[in-house]
Amino acid sequence: MGSAVFSEIDRNVEGYLDELFKLIRQPSISAQGEGIEACADLVTSLLDRHDFEPRVIETATYPLVYAEAIVDESAPTVLFYGHYDVQPAGDPARWDSPPFEPTIRDGSIYGRGAGDNKGQFVTNVFAAGALRRVAGELPVNVKFLIEGEEENGSRGLIEFIERDPPALDCDLVYVADGSMHRSRRPTLIYGNRGMLGFELSLERANAAVHSGNFGGPVPNPAVELVRVIDSLQDGDRIAVQGFYDDIAVSESQYEAVSRLPLDTEAIKRELGLDAFTVPDEAYYERLLLEPTLTVNGLDSGYQGAGMMTIIPNEARAKLDMRLVPDQDPEEVFELVLEHVQDANPDVVVEQLGTFPPLSTPMDTPAAVPVKRALAEAWDDEPVELPLLPGSLPVAYFERAVEAPILVVPYANPDQANHAPNEHLDLDCFVNGIRASAAFLERFGRADLHAS
Amino acid sequence: MGSAVFSEIDRNVEGYLDELFKLIRQPSISAQGEGIEACADLVTSLLDRHDFEPRVIETATYPLVYAEAIVDESAPTVLFYGHYDVQPAGDPARWDSPPFEPTIRDGSIYGRGAGDNKGQFVTNVFAAGALRRVAGELPVNVKFLIEGEEENGSRGLIEFIERDPPALDCDLVYVADGSMHRSRRPTLIYGNRGMLGFELSLERANAAVHSGNFGGPVPNPAVELVRVIDSLQDGDRIAVQGFYDDIAVSESQYEAVSRLPLDTEAIKRELGLDAFTVPDEAYYERLLLEPTLTVNGLDSGYQGAGMMTIIPNEARAKLDMRLVPDQDPEEVFELVLEHVQDANPDVVVEQLGTFPPLSTPMDTPAAVPVKRALAEAWDDEPVELPLLPGSLPVAYFERAVEAPILVVPYANPDQANHAPNEHLDLDCFVNGIRASAAFLERFGRADLHAS
Repeated sequence: MGSAVFSEIDRNVEGYLDELFKLIRQPSISAQGEGIEACADLVTSLLDRHDFEPRVIETATYPLVYAEAIVDESAPTVLFYGHYDVQPAGDPARWDSPPFEPTIRDGSIYGRGAGDNKGQFVTNVFAAGALRRVAGELPVNVKFLIEGEEENGSRGLIEFIERDPPALDCDLVYVADGSMHRSRRPTLIYGNRGMLGFELSLERANAAVHSGNFGGPVPNPAVELVRVIDSLQDGDRIAVQGFYDDIAVSESQYEAVSRLPLDTEAIKRELGLDAFTVPDEAYYERLLLEPTLTVNGLDSGYQGAGMMTIIPNEARAKLDMRLVPDQDPEEVFELVLEHVQDANPDVVVEQLGTFPPLSTPMDTPAAVPVKRALAEAWDDEPVELPLLPGSLPVAYFERAVEAPILVVPYANPDQANHAPNEHLDLDCFVNGIRASAAFLERFGRADLHAS
Repeated sequence: MGSAVFSEIDRNVEGYLDELFKLIRQPSISAQGEGIEACADLVTSLLDRHDFEPRVIETATYPLVYAEAIVDESAPTVLFYGHYDVQPAGDPARWDSPPFEPTIRDGSIYGRGAGDNKGQFVTNVFAAGALRRVAGELPVNVKFLIEGEEENGSRGLIEFIERDPPALDCDLVYVADGSMHRSRRPTLIYGNRGMLGFELSLERANAAVHSGNFGGPVPNPAVELVRVIDSLQDGDRIAVQGFYDDIAVSESQYEAVSRLPLDTEAIKRELGLDAFTVPDEAYYERLLLEPTLTVNGLDSGYQGAGMMTIIPNEARAKLDMRLVPDQDPEEVFELVLEHVQDANPDVVVEQLGTFPPLSTPMDTPAAVPVKRALAEAWDDEPVELPLLPGSLPVAYFERAVEAPILVVPYANPDQANHAPNEHLDLDCFVNGIRASAAFLERFGRADLHAS
C-alpha cells in the first residue's frame, strides 16, 4: 500500500502546491490580528475540499478550525494539530521575494508560513485525503485542530483545551511543526523544555545622583541587582532552593541524547564561539535535559559613550529559565520569588511568561508507527530527540489529553521561520505528506497497548 | 584694616556686578570649544583693569590666563586658581531666564557660570584690587591662574603643571570653587576623593541567539559579567586584592568629619530614600573618608517591554571608584585589571578617566588665616571638610606644587551648577570678595612655618 499512496501523492504534488500557495498568499499575522478570519476561511475550504467536514470553533481570541473523519469508534484516533497563523514578515527589503507571494526557488518554497506552519499542517490533510482515495476508506479516525494564535500565546487553544471537549479524545496528538534535526535526518521529538520568564527591578533614589557627591551612603540599585542576579546561580548550578526537586529526566532520555548526531565544530563556527559552557560531548545533555537561567537583558543608568559618573536610581533585568520535566513554571516562579525576597526584599519580581515542559515517554507504542513512517518516507533512520530545547504550546494539551504527544517536524533545519526568506524544501514538503500517509496506514495496525 | 577694605568692597559692588555680567554674557563652553578665546580675552582685560598685568599662556588645548603682583620676594605668595569656562547650558527652555543673559532675581545672580566659576574667581581679583587701593600696596605676592578647560578635563592645565614653571611657585594654592556646605556656613575644604572610571565588556557569540534553542551550552556574557561585577565587592567592602593598602586617612580627618553639621533626614527627603547604606551617623565618614565602587550603567540584550527570549551576545558595564588618600588611580586600575583577568580573562577592561585624590594636612598653618577670614566675612564659624566627596582637578597641582592646596567655596549650596538656573547668591558673592580680602590681609601676617 505504501507505494500506492506514495504514487498517488507524487501525482498530486502540483495541486498540493497550489493549495499551499493560496494559504501563504493570505497573510494571517496573529501578533497584529491581520487576516486571521480570512485565513481561517481558507483552511475551512481546504478541509472541505478534502471531505473532512470542518467547523470553526470560536474562542475569546481567534478561531480554531476543527475537522474529523470517524471511521470506526473502536479504531485508533489521531489528532493532527497545527496552526494557520504566521509571524510578522518584518522588513520586506530583507526578503529576496515578497513574503506573501510564494515562489519556488532552488528546490524550496519561499514565503512567510511556508515552513511555520502552513506548509507542514497541510501535509496531514493531503496525506489523509490521498490515503482515503487509494484505500477507499481511512484505516483510523482522523481529527484536525488548526489554531490561529500559535505565534501569539495560543490563548484560544488553551481556552479550548481547558474546556476538555470530546473533540480532544484521541490516542495520539501528532504535531508536524518545528525544524528537523541539523543532520537533516527525519526527526521525532518527544517533548520540550518549559519556560519561565521574569523581570527583576529595583528603584532607589528619586533620580540619578552624582557618584562623587553621594557615592558611599547612597544605595546603588545596579550593584544591588547584580548581587541578586549573581546569587541565583552558583557556577552553572541554579542556587534557588528547591529548584531541582521536581526534575524527572529518565535514563532513556539520557540514552537518546547520547545517540544524537552531533557536530559541535559546525555549531561553534555558526555562532562564532571558541567553546561552550560544557565539554563538547555534553552539548545535547546540557541543551536538552538540563534547566537554564538566562539573562535576556540588563538595563541601568548610563549606556552612552565615555563616562557619566552617576549612581543610577533604577536597574532592571529580564531573565528566562528553561525548565525540564517535571518542573512546574508556576511553582518555580514561587521559588524564585522567595529567593529574591530573601536576597533583597526591595527587588520587584514580575512574571513575564510561562510554558510547561512536556515529556512523552520514549517507549510509547504510538511512536513505533511514526518512526517506521519517517524511515519509509525519507529512506533514512529518524533522529529521536527526547526534548526540544525551546518551548512549544503543544505542552498545554497535557492539561486535558492523556494520549501521548509527538512532535514530527517536516521542515528543513534552515527553514528560517520567524526570519526573512522563510522556506520549506520541496523534498521535505513531499516527504512530509508521504510520512503522514505512511503513519496513518501503520497506525491502524499498531498495538497501542504494548508495554 | 578689615573694616576699611570691607567698606571699599561694599562701595564697588555695582561695578563688580557689571564686570561679572560681562563675563557671563560671553559663552565659554569648553566641551564644545565655544567662545573660549573671546572669554580668555575678557579675563585678560579684567585683570588688566585691576592692574595685574596678565598674560595668556597657550597650551595644546585652551589658553590659560596668568597674572601676578610680586611685592616682595620674601613675602608669602598665594596662587589663586579658577576657571573661565562653563558647562553647556542645556535646554534653554529649562531656564527661567536666558543662561547667557545674567540677571538678578530674589537676591541671586542667575546665569551659566554665575557660581561655577566666573562669579567665584573674580572675587579674588576684586579683593586684591580693593585691598591694594585701601592699603596702597598688597601685603603678599598674588598670582592668578585661570584656566579654560576645567569642565572638560583640564588638559591644558595639567600640561602646564607638568612643565613645573616658576609661575607655580607659591606658599598656598587658593581655590574659590565648588559649593558651601549644606548648612550654608562658610566652608574650607582640605582635599578631595580621587576617581577611577572604567568599562567592563564581554562579547561571546557573533549575534544574540534564541535562549530556548541554545540555552545551556552557549555562554551568556550578561551572566558572566554580572558575576565579575559582583566579585568586585564583598558586601560594602571592595574585594580587589591590595585595594586598601595605600589608604592613609588621618585621625584628624575622622575628627573633622565627626564635627560636621549633619541633617540626614533632609538628605533622605531630598533624594526620596528611606535609608542609607550605613547608619545615619556614619553618613559623612562613608561619604568623605571611604572609597566606593559605583556601577554607573549596565547594558545588555533586550531592554524593551515584555520579554524577548535571547542570549545576548555582549554585555557592558560602566563603573567608577572614588578613591581616598593616598590611593593612586593608575595603581588601583592595575589592581582592578588583575582582579578582572583572574575572574574572567575574556572581559575587556577599558580605563575611562582618573582624578588623583588630594589631601592637605588639616593642621597646615596656611589654613589659619583662611578660617579667620571666612569667619570675619560671614560672621559665622567655618565648616571644615577634610575631603570633598567628588573630585577636583586641583589635585593635579600636587604634581608640581609643594604648597598646601585649599578649596574655599563661596557659592551657595543650591547654586545648581551644571544644571539649569545656575545662580550665585548676592551675599555669597560679596562675602566671597570680603573673605578673599581678609585672607590677603591675614596671610601677610601668618606664621606659615608653625607646626
